[in-house]
Amino acid sequence: MAQALYIIKIGGNVIDNPAACSRFLSDFAKLDARKILVHGGGKIATQIAADLHIETQMVEGRRITDKPMLDVVTMVYGGLVNKNLVAQLQASNCNAIGLTGADGGIIRSVKRPVKNIDYGFVGDIEAVNNTQIDALLNSGLVPVIAPLTYSSEGLLLNTNADTMASATAVAMSAGYEVNLVYCFEKKGVLSDPDDDDAVISTLNPQTYAKYKSSGVINKGMIPKLDNAFDALHHGVRNVIICHAHDVLASANGNAGTLITL
Amino acid sequence: MAQALYIIKIGGNVIDNPAACSRFLSDFAKLDARKILVHGGGKIATQIAADLHIETQMVEGRRITDKPMLDVVTMVYGGLVNKNLVAQLQASNCNAIGLTGADGGIIRSVKRPVKNIDYGFVGDIEAVNNTQIDALLNSGLVPVIAPLTYSSEGLLLNTNADTMASATAVAMSAGYEVNLVYCFEKKGVLSDPDDDDAVISTLNPQTYAKYKSSGVINKGMIPKLDNAFDALHHGVRNVIICHAHDVLASANGNAGTLITL
Repeated sequence: MAQALYIIKIGGNVIDNPAACSRFLSDFAKLDARKILVHGGGKIATQIAADLHIETQMVEGRRITDKPMLDVVTMVYGGLVNKNLVAQLQASNCNAIGLTGADGGIIRSVKRPVKNIDYGFVGDIEAVNNTQIDALLNSGLVPVIAPLTYSSEGLLLNTNADTMASATAVAMSAGYEVNLVYCFEKKGVLSDPDDDDAVISTLNPQTYAKYKSSGVINKGMIPKLDNAFDALHHGVRNVIICHAHDVLASANGNAGTLITL
Repeated sequence: MAQALYIIKIGGNVIDNPAACSRFLSDFAKLDARKILVHGGGKIATQIAADLHIETQMVEGRRITDKPMLDVVTMVYGGLVNKNLVAQLQASNCNAIGLTGADGGIIRSVKRPVKNIDYGFVGDIEAVNNTQIDALLNSGLVPVIAPLTYSSEGLLLNTNADTMASATAVAMSAGYEVNLVYCFEKKGVLSDPDDDDAVISTLNPQTYAKYKSSGVINKGMIPKLDNAFDALHHGVRNVIICHAHDVLASANGNAGTLITL
């Protein structure tokens, strides 16, 4: 059996909360396996853009990345957030290396074509260089990936962190048993939205279909779970959805929702 | 004889000028040898700090890095400048990877002790991890290093780019014939400050002493050259001082000032 690899994604709810972030990083450092951290942006970019009088443009609920906003997310995601995560992990004896998709050419994308909406400098992933990522893992490094990619023309492009995590997980499945872990603000997929402890411990396509048809799983969870099953169909071994506080327990199968085929 | 390694430092005069920067990067990409780029910050950090109403504090002509300013330099040096250099190099088929000293733990420092002046979050280099840097070079990567280091407590620290280049050059001399190239705004060390073409082609300790005693070399060049000779005494093979436009010619010995023992 191939070696295990954990690809763990944290979002703004962790990044924006120093105590939660510090606790997560301490747990992540302790995870005794090959691992990659993918992080989102958090609210800092919006705050800094506002401080710089750069207007946040939303179209149909989605952020438009014009050139000034691209510079802000490059600074905040690629610099401030990424490098502080790396420095804290290094202090916890985790040999982190902060990367965007441009670094080592690990994740290349294409600027999203303009159809009805011009999203600006946003990238749709074209290729993940799993050989290069594997070379970094082989030299004992722990990649910490910011939500930015690059185009073959040398543009940096704002890219969705969830998508970067799943694309990386799929590509790395060529050589690893990949566990893709999405940390979010709940303890897992819930069978009762009003009971935070009602975690569904495992989901497979059959139980997922059942929960969907009964309406237990609905709305925002459906695209997340569809993406999870898509990753599984493309070679990822497990997808886990859990709270950032439970990342170690979830890796051991003792917390969160485990999604398998 | 050990393999050659070029460590090339560019400063704000290149970073701040998109045309000069693009020309330099195109030449750097063509340099057919193992290589590392170390970059300074440029004026963008000062501009962004001003836009964010963060005061630039100078004491005795030196910038003080308080926490808000540390965040600005982390964003600008580690994010905006570094990642744009990397993306442009990737587009020129140069497999660049952007790093601060924290990434891979390559350059660790200690927060400068407070004596008469509290410089704030400024690092004095303690250790360069040449084994880790060599592993990156061995996997075909070209490190692009931003002027930030980290402490063992997990702090990021603002660090002088010239010093980072020379410390890296000294450490890498354990396994390479290191050529340390400082690009600046002149074509080299000049024998006549009013004639930009009066480049002294080579300097060794004897000719340096002669030029110093006759007053041909004076003022600002003396600490630069003292540092160059110091690097040579610690194992660096050559130091070259040249214009950023001449980096390829200088690497071939056809431009700039070559400094040797």
